[in-house]
Amino acid sequence: MKYLLSDRMQGMEASAIRELLKVAQDPTVIAFSAGNPAPESFPIAEMAEISASIYKNSPSKAFQYGISEGYPPLRELTTKRLKEKLNIGKDFDQLIIVSGAQQGMELSTKMLTNPKDTVICESPSFIGSINAFKSYDLNLKSVEMDEMGIVPESLEAIVKEDNRVRFLYTIPTFQNPSGRTMTLERRKKILELARKYDFLILEDNPYGELRYTGEEIPTIKSLDDEGRVIYVGSYSKVLAPGIRIGFICAHKDIIAKMVIAKQVSDVHTNQFFMMVAAEYLEKCDLDQHILNVRKLYKNKLDLMAGCIEKYFPEEVIFHKPDGGLFLWCQLPEGYDAMGLCKLAGEKKVSIVPGRVFEVDDKEISGTFRMNFSTPSDENIVKGVEILGAVLKEYLKNNKPV
Amino acid sequence: MKYLLSDRMQGMEASAIRELLKVAQDPTVIAFSAGNPAPESFPIAEMAEISASIYKNSPSKAFQYGISEGYPPLRELTTKRLKEKLNIGKDFDQLIIVSGAQQGMELSTKMLTNPKDTVICESPSFIGSINAFKSYDLNLKSVEMDEMGIVPESLEAIVKEDNRVRFLYTIPTFQNPSGRTMTLERRKKILELARKYDFLILEDNPYGELRYTGEEIPTIKSLDDEGRVIYVGSYSKVLAPGIRIGFICAHKDIIAKMVIAKQVSDVHTNQFFMMVAAEYLEKCDLDQHILNVRKLYKNKLDLMAGCIEKYFPEEVIFHKPDGGLFLWCQLPEGYDAMGLCKLAGEKKVSIVPGRVFEVDDKEISGTFRMNFSTPSDENIVKGVEILGAVLKEYLKNNKPV
Repeated sequence: MKYLLSDRMQGMEASAIRELLKVAQDPTVIAFSAGNPAPESFPIAEMAEISASIYKNSPSKAFQYGISEGYPPLRELTTKRLKEKLNIGKDFDQLIIVSGAQQGMELSTKMLTNPKDTVICESPSFIGSINAFKSYDLNLKSVEMDEMGIVPESLEAIVKEDNRVRFLYTIPTFQNPSGRTMTLERRKKILELARKYDFLILEDNPYGELRYTGEEIPTIKSLDDEGRVIYVGSYSKVLAPGIRIGFICAHKDIIAKMVIAKQVSDVHTNQFFMMVAAEYLEKCDLDQHILNVRKLYKNKLDLMAGCIEKYFPEEVIFHKPDGGLFLWCQLPEGYDAMGLCKLAGEKKVSIVPGRVFEVDDKEISGTFRMNFSTPSDENIVKGVEILGAVLKEYLKNNKPV
Repeated sequence: MKYLLSDRMQGMEASAIRELLKVAQDPTVIAFSAGNPAPESFPIAEMAEISASIYKNSPSKAFQYGISEGYPPLRELTTKRLKEKLNIGKDFDQLIIVSGAQQGMELSTKMLTNPKDTVICESPSFIGSINAFKSYDLNLKSVEMDEMGIVPESLEAIVKEDNRVRFLYTIPTFQNPSGRTMTLERRKKILELARKYDFLILEDNPYGELRYTGEEIPTIKSLDDEGRVIYVGSYSKVLAPGIRIGFICAHKDIIAKMVIAKQVSDVHTNQFFMMVAAEYLEKCDLDQHILNVRKLYKNKLDLMAGCIEKYFPEEVIFHKPDGGLFLWCQLPEGYDAMGLCKLAGEKKVSIVPGRVFEVDDKEISGTFRMNFSTPSDENIVKGVEILGAVLKEYLKNNKPV
């Protein structure tokens, strides 16, 4: 039979990234396409010990229904850590645990937008969030970025003309996919525009603690004195993504409604692993763990960047980020990256064309994203060498449009 | 500052049940208000052993990102079990793992309804689902029930007049809150009406395996030859609710879109516990475990029913169900249960007024729900005795309206 779908879900397609992830499960493919943390970065031994103690000491609590706000000790410890590390958390703020940062985007969108409202995204931006916005039948507009982050003039041009802007979505630090970090000056300017034109900012910061070089830059949320910023964080990149634990810090009026949205969405997040995360924060040294993870990723980033310098043709520009999980590359003017990615796949190396991270359809997009956290060191060397050969072949056999 | 909420979330309030759950956390209160499984019904030892083996043998897989469809072995084993136990699963059907049955309602609603579409619910019905529907700005209509389940004439009267009915939501077996089970004849009739008037059926079956007396009745899904029924099941009541694992079996065209909706909602369900559930299904004896749980709950139900007969005034009608977790009681004509529930709370026994399960506002609602799975045997005896005294006092001091 034919099913009548909601307007909001009409035309929603599976995320290209997720589909690529499936392809990349082919063990003979060197996957630079994922955004996965390295398995060796998961604190397995500590979590195993904590899990065993939960089974021994408080299984009833771990397996029973919990409250939609999240396991109270995890809320408290996360709140405390946000304050200490990032100076986040004013008197008016509260925190809810969600099933990964993705759920933070979903709930924020559900709660704050009506169909055909406008949400502004960086161009390019994270596909998972873009799709969450699309699934609520919104008018997505993209704002220009440069190496310093969102271009304020581009943002102002949009919000000046459009009175249905509900929020700006931004990943200011080690952005996915571009790896860029917004300067402090730009952050202040963006927040000022939000005040002036009365829109909210959804600040997504999954990679903030994964800095390898350069100086810390304050989050937008820490600059926010009136509750204009909804801050979404995650334990996916510092503990493990499979546990699906993230959090939202926002004004208590927003969190109060978020709890209701969460309740009807999945009642609460997996109780056992909220307890594991809380115990980990309480008894283990997350800061030291993050230092280790940073070291691991910095080495991988340096290795990949070195190989790129060695094997890529000079005309291909790449941007070495100060942190995060991604390297962003650009073909010479006039070349499209789709054909390149296809060719690379045939040679058993997967990369993601920049086009999939765009809100607007572009005729040509010469960018592609490479992940350095997931592949082994050996595969980084091997994969970049193959990719270098693919690039040379591609540039030789294709003419710029 | 003032926040502009979406139309769909305007007026959404926290579920009364969830709020009661918080009150019932007062350890001096005997809680008949929850819907929790008994902690002693969780297969802790088996899950502990399985968890330890996952930590030892496949931690990378358990903590890494997974696919939105759910952990493939769990999908396969659940599909197989549905077929064997309930004759569910035609060639056109597929299965997705969700983060508890609640997410099944959320995703189905998001996927299938536009604002102001109609969804039909049993009167009374499960508050969590009602709130999920409300959170998509729907027109909720209630269909009459009697002891045999939904009254077909009442359903036909609605669907005849309303061409925006998208689906009927039903818990046909051991319904929450009424404990009722729909007869086979009624199930067939309901499905026939769905065909005739072209609407879908969302069949929620969290308690189906918790039968203590009477004969099995086929699910509506097992009678469905054309993919008109979306079947939502859960491991909350047979394994544990805190793990948040449920599943949806429906036509593959529906599941394909559901995967996308799931992807933008929380990417995937907690990977570790999808693996625990799969291993449990594979290596342990879930059927035997369910037999044990049934025995445990049957004893509690018999105990509570016996105490009610002993302590409640005769004018209070109660319905002993064939399964599930709830007993449904009714005050004499003209009495409202709100005051009773308040009075009981003051005497440290919590019960839920039937009113909170109603889609429509009623002037008087003399029903209340009692849960027998959570309290200890001792508390069942003690609580029902207190409640009996409260009832006598309430009926004496109040006059019917």
